[in-house]
Amino acid sequence: MVEAFDLPERILMGAGPSEVPPSVLRVMSAPLVGHLDPYFLKIMDENQTLLRYVFNTKNEFAIPISGTGSAGMETALCNMLESGDGIIIGINGLFSMRMKDIAERCGAKVHVIEQQLGRVFEPEQVEEALKETGAKAVALVHAETSTGACQPLQDIGRIVREKDALFIVDAVTSLGGVPVDVDANYIDICYSATQKCLSVPPGLAPLTLNERALEALENRRTKVQSWYLDLNMLRNYWGDERTYHHTAPISMNYALNQGLKIVQEEGLEERYERHKRISDLMTEGLVEMGFGLFAQEGHRLPMLITVTMPPGVDADRTRLELLQRYNIEFAGGFGELKGKIWRIGLMGHSASEKNVYYALSAIKKVTRK
Amino acid sequence: MVEAFDLPERILMGAGPSEVPPSVLRVMSAPLVGHLDPYFLKIMDENQTLLRYVFNTKNEFAIPISGTGSAGMETALCNMLESGDGIIIGINGLFSMRMKDIAERCGAKVHVIEQQLGRVFEPEQVEEALKETGAKAVALVHAETSTGACQPLQDIGRIVREKDALFIVDAVTSLGGVPVDVDANYIDICYSATQKCLSVPPGLAPLTLNERALEALENRRTKVQSWYLDLNMLRNYWGDERTYHHTAPISMNYALNQGLKIVQEEGLEERYERHKRISDLMTEGLVEMGFGLFAQEGHRLPMLITVTMPPGVDADRTRLELLQRYNIEFAGGFGELKGKIWRIGLMGHSASEKNVYYALSAIKKVTRK
Repeated sequence: MVEAFDLPERILMGAGPSEVPPSVLRVMSAPLVGHLDPYFLKIMDENQTLLRYVFNTKNEFAIPISGTGSAGMETALCNMLESGDGIIIGINGLFSMRMKDIAERCGAKVHVIEQQLGRVFEPEQVEEALKETGAKAVALVHAETSTGACQPLQDIGRIVREKDALFIVDAVTSLGGVPVDVDANYIDICYSATQKCLSVPPGLAPLTLNERALEALENRRTKVQSWYLDLNMLRNYWGDERTYHHTAPISMNYALNQGLKIVQEEGLEERYERHKRISDLMTEGLVEMGFGLFAQEGHRLPMLITVTMPPGVDADRTRLELLQRYNIEFAGGFGELKGKIWRIGLMGHSASEKNVYYALSAIKKVTRK
Repeated sequence: MVEAFDLPERILMGAGPSEVPPSVLRVMSAPLVGHLDPYFLKIMDENQTLLRYVFNTKNEFAIPISGTGSAGMETALCNMLESGDGIIIGINGLFSMRMKDIAERCGAKVHVIEQQLGRVFEPEQVEEALKETGAKAVALVHAETSTGACQPLQDIGRIVREKDALFIVDAVTSLGGVPVDVDANYIDICYSATQKCLSVPPGLAPLTLNERALEALENRRTKVQSWYLDLNMLRNYWGDERTYHHTAPISMNYALNQGLKIVQEEGLEERYERHKRISDLMTEGLVEMGFGLFAQEGHRLPMLITVTMPPGVDADRTRLELLQRYNIEFAGGFGELKGKIWRIGLMGHSASEKNVYYALSAIKKVTRK
């Protein structure tokens, strides 16, 4: 008999995965039904309805892509872009750089607009770039997980719509934690991931697109370069036709179903409020201990706090101690922020007073040496 | 409190997913650790070692792609092929047609060789096509899940190697059920899925490649068109560098770990023998009841039996009754085989005497009206 492995009980306050509620973990272990079983089809339908709710959209098309958040990013870009298409990408962190890499692999002409790490884009910057380039699409990251900055969307979305371009938004870390409001923010295609504020294990990428994005998809001159991520085919698989495409990850869809029902039960507004309240509590404690807040004031993500260290505190050494001694996971910085910041996640089920009070006490211990 | 849903207890004897052993289901509900946690890195390492075992290969590179079997197919093709490259694809069923679609999206020149549904390719056919086209690669499906045919690999593999081409093999349904033997069969790149004979829920695609395939990858003139499936980046994520790429599906990797340990404990040879023995038992019972065997004699898959109906028996109506009345899932035919055959899966944990005896009794009931 093979023994199931034992794992330490981590407090997940990193950049994702977040902690998963017990009932979501329980449905993960439910026996499987077939992927074309009437019971599974019902779960697929429910998941689409529930995704419309969390995206706050009237879009018909809202499905989980069978891959992680990065697969969602690639799906959005490779379905909207063809060789030679122009796209404006706002680069102010790791995930927008990833967008550029993917768009270039689609053969797109990428026009970069930039902001410092931790800062957000102003509507004028996007407007000017659109005037200059006449690009087909604009892509921004809503919640830049590498810096902790929260990009305002509505004014930019309105400008993009007026110019008849497509607005592509990465809501990987924001969905379920701050309002994404796909329709109100004029977003044409939006994707996320399960392991952040939805508190479902990683493995699926919720994605929605509106009629304008569908029209762009239908008007392509060439096939989507990815078969696995081709939204024309995924649409027929998730739609009434049920045309076989791939085998949907059954257990992950069980988990998504349960996770989204928990979000619905709490209520989106209540969930946003909880994220803000818990985040403020954590931030206050950190500032008191001498940590600096990294992201631009007024544009700080509640579910991902980025802090610079008090004098004399080694970011990576203390972070390792928090993991080894206290079972607390924080994330570190990427690239030029490596060794300089902590990224503290308070996402979904992880956003609790219990975690904040425990973490603040532990931080006090490891920084006082 | 949201109640976790109730699902019927299905007997999974379709084309996958197969039944999942209880201890694999249990680890699916283990609390998460971070994807860069030392404990998770250990599981990633173990999974690579265990995959080398089931693929029966000395290849260093053996990882689960973070998508389903079709993502594995796309990974193999889009990493090996660039625009203008020639590839020979043996088409004798749905999954080889899918290969053609994907290869064309990579810009490859596809040379098709064909066989009737249910039949396999002869080495001469491949040899001739290689001589004619000088193609860079040959792609075949080992276990064609849409027809039940098992493609012999070794003689063809030797020919492909002699011509210095790349041998790409789809082992989605065969891995863990019949010998895939990557090295002995001269396979350069091989992919599979978790939900067939490995009896792990769907969501990951085991994949291995050898030094020849790595060399082809390194000698590319252009970037791999998919960022998510780029093996250069996945290699650094799964290798000692641990360079962040995407967030691996944590729970699915727990499940793969446990599932592969169960395969290892049973032993590959014993597992192949069990699949054969259980399959023979089922086949015998079906033939006695007047079912016809669809796939080419001598080349029938043990884990996927394809049968034509006895006179007067409606394939789809009886299949629905088996599901609704007896909770037994069989798969039906695709395309021109729609309504004409059953596809009966005896994969991994589903390959048991319990399932065979129960199913044979139920079949007797539904076909005797």
